[in-house]
Amino acid sequence: MKLGRLNHVGVATPSIEKSLETYRTMFGVEPRGAPFDLPAQGVRVCFVDAPNSQIELIEPLGEASPIVKFLEKNPLGGQHHVCFEVPDIHAAKADFEAKGARVLGEPRIGAHGTLVFFVHPKDMGGVLTEIMETPGEAH
Amino acid sequence: MKLGRLNHVGVATPSIEKSLETYRTMFGVEPRGAPFDLPAQGVRVCFVDAPNSQIELIEPLGEASPIVKFLEKNPLGGQHHVCFEVPDIHAAKADFEAKGARVLGEPRIGAHGTLVFFVHPKDMGGVLTEIMETPGEAH
Repeated sequence: MKLGRLNHVGVATPSIEKSLETYRTMFGVEPRGAPFDLPAQGVRVCFVDAPNSQIELIEPLGEASPIVKFLEKNPLGGQHHVCFEVPDIHAAKADFEAKGARVLGEPRIGAHGTLVFFVHPKDMGGVLTEIMETPGEAH
Repeated sequence: MKLGRLNHVGVATPSIEKSLETYRTMFGVEPRGAPFDLPAQGVRVCFVDAPNSQIELIEPLGEASPIVKFLEKNPLGGQHHVCFEVPDIHAAKADFEAKGARVLGEPRIGAHGTLVFFVHPKDMGGVLTEIMETPGEAH
């Protein structure tokens, strides 16, 4: 497997609106679209485009959100994960598992509408790593 | 100021060599060049290229390294900062300061040979943010 595009850096925040205000003030940038709920991942999501990649702002969606604990430790928010693209999500999952990495659950629909999975940070140098099947042109 | 290219994601590690082994095993990728010391920032550095951006692996250089505390909290390593490019580092510094963001010290030479500064994570949604004058073609 090759190292694919850095699709985005996932940034957890207690408030997408507040984070967008920071990006607006500091960088004069507006989000790519309105925030939307992603129930499969337990987060509310909004993207901010850099010329070559994206920042994915994620806010907890419900009390069982997987980022609640992260925000307890990091009340202001912070870098939560990085996401790399792969051409085939199932081949990537098999490849990571064959190499002994812990894949967290089955592939699920991610924020760009394609299948994603996460790899345990303990197997990735402390970095929670999302693997995403490359989105089509529409994304 | 516009949001510039995401030049890299900075990943702190207790061992660049060990991290490179992870990238080699999991993604079949070799570093862009050999690790090198960056005394001005108190880190040893090595870059891994994704097609559109980079991962900057940083290891403490000396006991006074600014990432020693980060690694005490995150012994395996983890995401340390994000770095965006700007066309003019001094204009960017003045702009951040005019907006009330805390710029951490004067611009210094960064890992790509151009001037950089960091903005306090408390002013950037918990994300330690490096601002880098866009490197030339050689970088």
